Amino acid sequence: MEFKKEFTAGIIIIGNEILSGRTVDKNTSFIASWLNEKGISVEEVRAIPDKEQVIIDTVNELRNKFAYVFTTGGIGPTHDDITSESISKVFNQKYQYHQEAYKLLEDYYKNQDFNEGRKKMAKMPEHAKFIPNPKTFAAGFYVENVFVLPGVPSILQVMVPYLDKIIKNGKKILSVSIDSGLRESVLADGLSEIQNKYKEIDIGSYPYFNFLSKTGGVNISISSWSMDSLDDVEKEISDMIKLNGGNYSIV
Amino acid sequence: MEFKKEFTAGIIIIGNEILSGRTVDKNTSFIASWLNEKGISVEEVRAIPDKEQVIIDTVNELRNKFAYVFTTGGIGPTHDDITSESISKVFNQKYQYHQEAYKLLEDYYKNQDFNEGRKKMAKMPEHAKFIPNPKTFAAGFYVENVFVLPGVPSILQVMVPYLDKIIKNGKKILSVSIDSGLRESVLADGLSEIQNKYKEIDIGSYPYFNFLSKTGGVNISISSWSMDSLDDVEKEISDMIKLNGGNYSIV
Repeated sequence: MEFKKEFTAGIIIIGNEILSGRTVDKNTSFIASWLNEKGISVEEVRAIPDKEQVIIDTVNELRNKFAYVFTTGGIGPTHDDITSESISKVFNQKYQYHQEAYKLLEDYYKNQDFNEGRKKMAKMPEHAKFIPNPKTFAAGFYVENVFVLPGVPSILQVMVPYLDKIIKNGKKILSVSIDSGLRESVLADGLSEIQNKYKEIDIGSYPYFNFLSKTGGVNISISSWSMDSLDDVEKEISDMIKLNGGNYSIV
Repeated sequence: MEFKKEFTAGIIIIGNEILSGRTVDKNTSFIASWLNEKGISVEEVRAIPDKEQVIIDTVNELRNKFAYVFTTGGIGPTHDDITSESISKVFNQKYQYHQEAYKLLEDYYKNQDFNEGRKKMAKMPEHAKFIPNPKTFAAGFYVENVFVLPGVPSILQVMVPYLDKIIKNGKKILSVSIDSGLRESVLADGLSEIQNKYKEIDIGSYPYFNFLSKTGGVNISISSWSMDSLDDVEKEISDMIKLNGGNYSIV
């Protein structure tokens, strides 16, 4: 089913280290779980390199498509951190020091060399609003519906809660996750019938395998943004699992 | 720097479980590392939902942009596995049983119910070529430059090696990863100067933090697809690290 545009989001993971396979991206999962709790659906994630034109084009495409866009990465002190300058270009705003961000960094580095790289972390689009960073004082920011966050997961995770009041909650998704002790392929036909009956519900099935112990199964996820109860569909899935010799359990 | 189109790839992660934050995607990292070893650069990754039109549009966009496209997910037995049918539509080919794939599944399930869901795993675009799966016998496939793989990482990982001979190697990237014991912001200005001097080399810096022990540092990655040696740039970075009081080490 489709969402109202106002409760949709896109995530842009900026950084060559994701594309080279060097780093496994953990920020998508964190941001998406937080948004889901707020009743906002992530519709697309893109991982792109540290290339200015690619950043500009991708941000422009996604900010027109979704209500919110989150970027991660590329706001540090080094030459390959080009996200903030690219976002300035997206919005045709000057790329300049943000007074509050500059002051915080100046204090933070007061006994050290406050070099160009460190100063750079206070540079943002002219009308950017500041997202505080209680860990290292290098701030994030947002302009309109584009939220610019760091790539380091432990820093991102302490900054995201500041956005809780800024981003309006949608209707929270109802969801249940079920295990059955059965293989996905045993349940496929039954789940398909139940899905056809309940169009307002998304039924997902996620197989898991352990090849060493030769065991496996499937997690069934039932979710709905529009319904007020999942009781009926849970009952049907539970009956179907029992009919196939499995054990229904909530996981 | 830019790559020849022939040695570029895009990855499409298909599945609501990535977008909901439920699952951390590990397939990108595996596929990208393997491609990097082969001298092929991953230029973009997209995670998209199990929605037919989105799958079709995304595959079409990326297969025109890059030499290779890899999809993961959505080729299992259940109603929400719609990748194979969507790929058939991308290429205007019939969606039908692949004889060899059907036979393998029939044998595999010979003592069990070979139901519609299980049979579905043998359905592919009419002219698809088969990618064997030694674990569960539900095959992947490819059509032209689009390679369709499963979402379960342990299965994907035993199938990818079959593609080694099918996908031509590019020139392998030269790369070195360095630690210095210093913070990223100490080295930012120096790295920037060195990067400006060596345009054929990508210098990336990846900060890490441990907030409990209040320690942190940065990994510097030097890589080049076009140069034959990184010795000169390594020497300059090593000198710069020493000048700033750090210790150069290969990691």
